[in-house]
Amino acid sequence: MSADQQARAGIQNPGSQAALRGLNEQRILATLRTHGTLTQAALARSTGLSTATISNIVKSMVSTGRVTTTPTTSSGRRALGVTVLDEADVAVGIDFGRSHVRVVLAKSGFRLLDEEFTALEVGHHVEASIDVAARMLEALCERTNTSRSQLIGAGIGIPGPIDHRTNMVIRGAILPEWVDLDIDALLRRALDLPVFIDNDSNLGALAQITWGEHQECANLCFLKIGGGIGSGLILNSSLHYGNLGVTGEIGHSTIFDQGLICRCGNRGCLETVASTGIMVELLSRTENAPVSIENIIERAEAGDSATLRVIDDVGVAVGHALANVANLINPEVIVLGGPLAPLGEALLAPIRRGLQRHAIPVIGENTTLCMSMLGDRAEALGAAALVLRQSAALP
Amino acid sequence: MSADQQARAGIQNPGSQAALRGLNEQRILATLRTHGTLTQAALARSTGLSTATISNIVKSMVSTGRVTTTPTTSSGRRALGVTVLDEADVAVGIDFGRSHVRVVLAKSGFRLLDEEFTALEVGHHVEASIDVAARMLEALCERTNTSRSQLIGAGIGIPGPIDHRTNMVIRGAILPEWVDLDIDALLRRALDLPVFIDNDSNLGALAQITWGEHQECANLCFLKIGGGIGSGLILNSSLHYGNLGVTGEIGHSTIFDQGLICRCGNRGCLETVASTGIMVELLSRTENAPVSIENIIERAEAGDSATLRVIDDVGVAVGHALANVANLINPEVIVLGGPLAPLGEALLAPIRRGLQRHAIPVIGENTTLCMSMLGDRAEALGAAALVLRQSAALP
Repeated sequence: MSADQQARAGIQNPGSQAALRGLNEQRILATLRTHGTLTQAALARSTGLSTATISNIVKSMVSTGRVTTTPTTSSGRRALGVTVLDEADVAVGIDFGRSHVRVVLAKSGFRLLDEEFTALEVGHHVEASIDVAARMLEALCERTNTSRSQLIGAGIGIPGPIDHRTNMVIRGAILPEWVDLDIDALLRRALDLPVFIDNDSNLGALAQITWGEHQECANLCFLKIGGGIGSGLILNSSLHYGNLGVTGEIGHSTIFDQGLICRCGNRGCLETVASTGIMVELLSRTENAPVSIENIIERAEAGDSATLRVIDDVGVAVGHALANVANLINPEVIVLGGPLAPLGEALLAPIRRGLQRHAIPVIGENTTLCMSMLGDRAEALGAAALVLRQSAALP
Repeated sequence: MSADQQARAGIQNPGSQAALRGLNEQRILATLRTHGTLTQAALARSTGLSTATISNIVKSMVSTGRVTTTPTTSSGRRALGVTVLDEADVAVGIDFGRSHVRVVLAKSGFRLLDEEFTALEVGHHVEASIDVAARMLEALCERTNTSRSQLIGAGIGIPGPIDHRTNMVIRGAILPEWVDLDIDALLRRALDLPVFIDNDSNLGALAQITWGEHQECANLCFLKIGGGIGSGLILNSSLHYGNLGVTGEIGHSTIFDQGLICRCGNRGCLETVASTGIMVELLSRTENAPVSIENIIERAEAGDSATLRVIDDVGVAVGHALANVANLINPEVIVLGGPLAPLGEALLAPIRRGLQRHAIPVIGENTTLCMSMLGDRAEALGAAALVLRQSAALP
């Protein structure tokens, strides 16, 4: 893990006093969550920490409002009961898309307070979308009676690979306007909050194991098919960032050596045969006006053969790329998200066929493929989860 | 993480007293390794554990020979200094190949004591190779003056995917003789030791971060090109096992949809265009007798154009498959092992070309590709490392 990744994961120098104290705090919180209210003596017995250590840490957690103490008696003696506070902390999740901004507010304990969605024009200025997000956040705070002091940070989803060395969007992203900007500074200034920036597919994956039905799943791949194709990987129950923070780039698997040039600079990438843009292009050729994604979904439901043929070809190509993923990292579940999710089995069936055709048999048979139940909100919910997990609230 | 994986990683029910005690032991050992001899009071200060907890755990570690205590004085008062013992434990590493067995003995602290290699006929019986390994182990113990009581376990490398639900080799492996056997029981009986079975490429990867020059590397891919093509993945500093234990199966990426049928049951897999078997087949067509891998290496060094052409094509195909790997998991380093390693740049250059042609630019530019410095011993060393890491000796 690089120093940067350690910082992201909230890990300081592992041998340091601060890191040790953090570990001890987490142990105390985890014990309280499992056992309810405990006396300091009982906490010491359960954690193996000294009573002096417990007393110090509890004192500091009381001052930051993380736990509360109540006088009680234990074996006839006066003692102090320690209880985790259902914290007032509220996390913001913001999902920036090519043509939308979505903002959610969530409390620790992973309760969604409220959300808002705004459509934007494709090609809008970055500053414009950040302004919109800031105004949506104000409105949400007002509506939910949330004071600014309760906001602990904003998770930000961006549909592009982010280089964790610089925290900048990498050239070739689906949002060229975001490339080379110091988005961290722009967002911090506009929102007046600590910000945690991540790739939208990573946040989709995090949402599945946080808010979704896969909380017990240690190895999961979240695939988002949209204007671009990206994936987020949960490996051993954590988001996988790799060396630079650029992972899950399935959209740039070469499918046809002599295929179309891709915005990444390569050729014949999966994105050049399977993105929503390509589907729209293929299906609009014989139309007077470009078809929309909604049109594609409606026509598929109505059984239109050209539409179903395009969906089938897209699915098999995606399945082929997913087979390489499954052969490599052997996830338990692959969850599909993005605007095509309403297609359901019409899209899942050809993907499953492509996966089973190209995966080694034992993996093909044992990899579950399903649609995300979180719909369009997966990325914004994941962004809020990023904040809640980074805050000390979650061990 | 599955219960099985937790057991492999030595993690019990995370909330249990035993798990907590294990964590505390590890914290104490880690502190002693960093600081040298410490008094129990200093250990309590450094770890945040109570002196009672420290005293209990040190007592138990003294009884199992993990640490030793010596009377000392601290601030003028009598105290007990605690020191980690350079343990007598010896780990066995055994690498079973299609035509060889290699056995190494290693001490904790990762010092190689001795090793032995025996060539076997292709198609030998499993029991025969296990008998050979058991006799080699006896000979090594005698030669190194190691008593059987010092042996803490044997790590076993098998060149095939292993289903962690059953601990059995999966059908389609390069060693068909090993499929469906209860190798765990066979090996335990023959060696009279606890055994830890893993895929050979996984062990090669483990060796790189344990004995190799990549000890600081958190994300590494070890690729073994031999009769089969497999890889082992170090992700976030741990071996990645995924859902079933079947990971890194790069050899079964489809390269040509209409290609040769592969032993895995699929078609056009990387193994059908890039294994050593295919290279031998291609280069033997115009010869009277089949060429050997040694011949291929000699001819490449002599500049034989047919040989270099075959190596080039193999390299580009491998590089293409590695680009998908790099785009997905973004390793810092990809290390090549297996019998072709002596080819050096003749093989690395076309792999690098294939990788950079198909990886997204920022990943192509930032992924280091190199040959393993551990040579043929990587897998056996990794097998010994598996034992040493599983034993409580290493936190």
